[in-house]
Amino acid sequence: MPTTDKASSRDRLLDAADRLFYRDGVSVGVEALCRTAGVSKRSMYQLFESKDEMLAASLERRLPRYQALLMPPDPVAGTPRERILYVFEQVKKASAEPDYCGCPYLAVLVELKDPEHPASQVARAAKEHLAEMFRTQAEEGGARDPELLARQLMLIFDGASARAGARVERLDDGLATATVTALMDAAAMR
Amino acid sequence: MPTTDKASSRDRLLDAADRLFYRDGVSVGVEALCRTAGVSKRSMYQLFESKDEMLAASLERRLPRYQALLMPPDPVAGTPRERILYVFEQVKKASAEPDYCGCPYLAVLVELKDPEHPASQVARAAKEHLAEMFRTQAEEGGARDPELLARQLMLIFDGASARAGARVERLDDGLATATVTALMDAAAMR
Repeated sequence: MPTTDKASSRDRLLDAADRLFYRDGVSVGVEALCRTAGVSKRSMYQLFESKDEMLAASLERRLPRYQALLMPPDPVAGTPRERILYVFEQVKKASAEPDYCGCPYLAVLVELKDPEHPASQVARAAKEHLAEMFRTQAEEGGARDPELLARQLMLIFDGASARAGARVERLDDGLATATVTALMDAAAMR
Repeated sequence: MPTTDKASSRDRLLDAADRLFYRDGVSVGVEALCRTAGVSKRSMYQLFESKDEMLAASLERRLPRYQALLMPPDPVAGTPRERILYVFEQVKKASAEPDYCGCPYLAVLVELKDPEHPASQVARAAKEHLAEMFRTQAEEGGARDPELLARQLMLIFDGASARAGARVERLDDGLATATVTALMDAAAMR
């Protein structure tokens, strides 16, 4: 297979993995993934050792896009408080989409129930990256205990994504923003 | 089959369903469930129309036990604030168990990604029951906006369960309790 075909098979498989794992969960089968990608199982196993590896690779590839969506476009514009609120405004916007199933990284962690799985490790790193951003902003905003505030914001982030993704809550009235504001106030953050 | 055998097959199947769905997720197969329960597939299909129905029945049967674990043993003892904190103390305790995988009802909602699934409906009712308890206590405690506070507490409850269940957070230092306290204070709850 020429290199470009290989690259495009890989991309098509990862596109299918992104979509199907997010929509249907991690138990989606290799057949469905290959069929959606238009790639033979033989080719798939030349590109990825296993379905698990393909899941991890798809989450890894998706990460920059996911982070670009959540993070303020200009990382120094506005106040630390505004930068944190921006993240939750983005979650609110995403949750209004009909195909929203919550944060893909949290979903994978909940579904796999195995912290050692290669995909869980990618998901954990994604979560740590966001917590780190919260911590940095909390420090810059003079929060009393930036580490505690960052962990509290992660509870809200994951609680809001999971509940809105499962359609047991709606975020469009600003629920997450109001909660985050109360916690930033309680931490005496500017 | 005599009635008592039928009852015991049903109980054994529901016990297996409780354990396996919680530990491994909703994609556990009928074979594994029947093998664990020591019940033939034929008998299983005499008792339940489908695996989906068995999952819903197992969540339904588990509900009183789950609620008894979370709710204060004496529903009028202590203050409304203490009754809410009791729930989060129980989550903290549960999360210290090695086999903790978070709230079983949230996990099913996240995994099924289908609000119309019979098991999602049981899970949603479990969530609504807890939110209702929070709302009642918030009202009794004079919170400024009891409905808002109840929804915020649900974000914390599900965020904390999901993150601790996925081993990306620990609750043993009182993270959830501290967060809930900050939100009750912000709502001017007694």
